Amino acid sequence: MENLNLGKHISGQFNAELEHIRTQVMVMGGLVEQQLTDAINAMHQADEELARRVIEDDRKVNNMEVSIDEACVRIIAKRQPTASDLRLVMAITKTVSELERIGDVADKICRMALEKFSHQHKPLLVNLESLGRHTVQMLHDVLDAFARMDIDEAVRIYREDKKVDQEYEGIIRQLMTYMMEDPRSIPSVLTALACARSIERIGDRCQNICEFIFYFVKGQDFRHRSGDEVENLLAKK
Amino acid sequence: MENLNLGKHISGQFNAELEHIRTQVMVMGGLVEQQLTDAINAMHQADEELARRVIEDDRKVNNMEVSIDEACVRIIAKRQPTASDLRLVMAITKTVSELERIGDVADKICRMALEKFSHQHKPLLVNLESLGRHTVQMLHDVLDAFARMDIDEAVRIYREDKKVDQEYEGIIRQLMTYMMEDPRSIPSVLTALACARSIERIGDRCQNICEFIFYFVKGQDFRHRSGDEVENLLAKK
Repeated sequence: MENLNLGKHISGQFNAELEHIRTQVMVMGGLVEQQLTDAINAMHQADEELARRVIEDDRKVNNMEVSIDEACVRIIAKRQPTASDLRLVMAITKTVSELERIGDVADKICRMALEKFSHQHKPLLVNLESLGRHTVQMLHDVLDAFARMDIDEAVRIYREDKKVDQEYEGIIRQLMTYMMEDPRSIPSVLTALACARSIERIGDRCQNICEFIFYFVKGQDFRHRSGDEVENLLAKK
Repeated sequence: MENLNLGKHISGQFNAELEHIRTQVMVMGGLVEQQLTDAINAMHQADEELARRVIEDDRKVNNMEVSIDEACVRIIAKRQPTASDLRLVMAITKTVSELERIGDVADKICRMALEKFSHQHKPLLVNLESLGRHTVQMLHDVLDAFARMDIDEAVRIYREDKKVDQEYEGIIRQLMTYMMEDPRSIPSVLTALACARSIERIGDRCQNICEFIFYFVKGQDFRHRSGDEVENLLAKK
């Protein structure tokens, strides 16, 4: 991980603490990325064992959120950071909450998979691997951008979500047709719909992490702006 | 609003600032509660004008989240709170994020309502008023508990979510039957399903706010625990 020029503090210890928290975020992000990849594989390959492992490991993700959050509160209380240090801590505490929710998606997909397997060992009605891979890549890239606080890359990833949305819309249309044609497919379609929606939401969560990168780098809150407004704000500075 | 014994600070100004932020959270909560009530009414009464107003006002909710968050960062940087003051600020910044997401549900319901009205001016397939009222009440109660940092009330509300989940399950079963019986109902059912799911999620968000109350009062993170674990932890202290 690159050093964010955090080395300007009088206390080398403070620096080490901040770096440690950042590393923890990366470890957590890596675990969430793996969970998501495994969840999509488990669903498509009807791999019960893998699904159970993902559900089991969600506890690790949850524990990491709590422990990173605690470290953030500790560092605020002890080191009383201001300016960009404080922004970094706030960005981290919000980012881990998004990561935890992405972890929940992996868990949820696997729970749906197991429920489905208990009735029939058939693969999912539609192929969500492409949508899944797309969002896993977004997550991978946004973690990378977060590690380097790379705003150009964050802008690119922010825009990428539009493509995820388009892909999702296509899947919904396909599933609607299945249901209309054969009402017996409805329960399977609903499972596929719920999976697709959860995966699509990961794109939004990655966008949120992009906003925390903007916030850290630019010192300004970019949430709840339209895409055009974000582009303008970023261009101005 | 009761005073949380915040008046122990050397600086009366600090106190006033903390109180001001708490008041802002209550104002934001009140607005979100109104938005949600209006959204459910707009959907059921096919009231286009009301739906548009809710969508319009979502911007206010978003702005409040950003401005309260800014105030939290400012108070950390300026006053360097520790212990329960710091926990209060962290609890607030997480709570407003939950409130904003509840606001998004109101906005989403109204957008679905408008899309539905553009095809047909028929009311929703199932009655979501009871589920809606239930979650609005939960939100109302949790805001009240947050204002007083009332842990007993927070425990009660935390448990309430189970009833919301049961009510939601009933609605899902009803909608599944409609779809099976008449495939032409599918588009309307999907709208109703999406509304019901969004409303059900509000219960989870209220539970999250309860956890922030536990965190403030007990100084311990209660997230990601099972219901039983939460009861045990709360009983112990």
